[in-house]
Amino acid sequence: MIKLHYMHHIDVHVEKDVYDVNNRIADANAARLKEHGVRAFDLLGAIGSGKTALIERLVPLLKQRGLRAGAIAGDVYGDDDFKRIVALGVPAVNANTGKECHLDAHLVQHAIEELPLEEIDVLFIENVGNLVCPTDFRLGAEKRIVIVSATEGDDVVNKHPMMFRGSSIGVINKIDLAEYVGADLDRMEKDMCRYNPEIQVFRTNLKTGAGTERLLDAIFR
Amino acid sequence: MIKLHYMHHIDVHVEKDVYDVNNRIADANAARLKEHGVRAFDLLGAIGSGKTALIERLVPLLKQRGLRAGAIAGDVYGDDDFKRIVALGVPAVNANTGKECHLDAHLVQHAIEELPLEEIDVLFIENVGNLVCPTDFRLGAEKRIVIVSATEGDDVVNKHPMMFRGSSIGVINKIDLAEYVGADLDRMEKDMCRYNPEIQVFRTNLKTGAGTERLLDAIFR
Repeated sequence: MIKLHYMHHIDVHVEKDVYDVNNRIADANAARLKEHGVRAFDLLGAIGSGKTALIERLVPLLKQRGLRAGAIAGDVYGDDDFKRIVALGVPAVNANTGKECHLDAHLVQHAIEELPLEEIDVLFIENVGNLVCPTDFRLGAEKRIVIVSATEGDDVVNKHPMMFRGSSIGVINKIDLAEYVGADLDRMEKDMCRYNPEIQVFRTNLKTGAGTERLLDAIFR
Repeated sequence: MIKLHYMHHIDVHVEKDVYDVNNRIADANAARLKEHGVRAFDLLGAIGSGKTALIERLVPLLKQRGLRAGAIAGDVYGDDDFKRIVALGVPAVNANTGKECHLDAHLVQHAIEELPLEEIDVLFIENVGNLVCPTDFRLGAEKRIVIVSATEGDDVVNKHPMMFRGSSIGVINKIDLAEYVGADLDRMEKDMCRYNPEIQVFRTNLKTGAGTERLLDAIFR
């Protein structure tokens, strides 16, 4: 047990340094994006919550408004999301984390280097599907948008206070399936507002696109 | 950048020691459970995949077979799952990880100390809702059972190779909702078998209980 406590102690110091380094790179990312007139948004949520589906909905809406999108697709492994974004015809980079359960500013820095920033007005950074790990790792984005789905259960927000405290916008997706899983959408919304009185909450059905226009207005506000 | 590389280097060493310590405690947990005749199973899956629902279905089936269940409810925060398990009338411990995205053997060791092992034949250890982080942290359970839901998208397995390589049983849940989200259940099953040819795959609807009898047989095999 002495050994374990010793390791915990070391861990804390390493963690603090890792966050410091990450925050410095995140600031550099933000500066670089601003320099190129790119507005960036960090999309967070569990696996299958609708992060890629949201990008698929927003890209054409942005196009209607004369804005060009780009994306970084973060995943532990594979290119399932990346391929869906490429199919939209926008510049995209696939960022595989290997074993890590979140993007960090360093990975995003390299992804940004690969993107044609002069051709991008709005950059979506799709984080790894995870409601826990990304919390402490700022990437340099302007806002965090967190997406949960009714099918994740109406206790999903209550279980993840940190994620909602750190986000500007909360999206409740798959509202059409709430009745099938017995999810109380009002409880989900109330839990978001309880953890973060500043958060703006939107309900969407990304399969039909319902709710996305209003959400886009809020993202750009 | 030199600083960052330096930190990565330290990180690797800390990580290795943390795994070594964790594995030793996991072995001690397994020995202690065996000594008391308790069979333990690690339940893994994303948030809302159906881990608690599976426990709710299996506990009465176990009772019919004359077996007494117990559970450790792992979550980052809160007691939503814990309360559902307590309602089943079985001994349970709530294990909140704080910020960590997985249980570790040390947390489970303390949880086991609080359980009346002489009154338990089968212990379910419900891990934190996460398909990435728990992979490398053995807890001392006999088998790992990983649950995904059709509503997480049919690419969920492909995105998480490590989780399926390390599990003996794969469950595809919410099969009744596959048609609403356009999920290809065969793809999910094929991906599981591709990553782990030894895995046994079951399809369930935990809302109705469909598929749980056969799954329980496989867990105990």
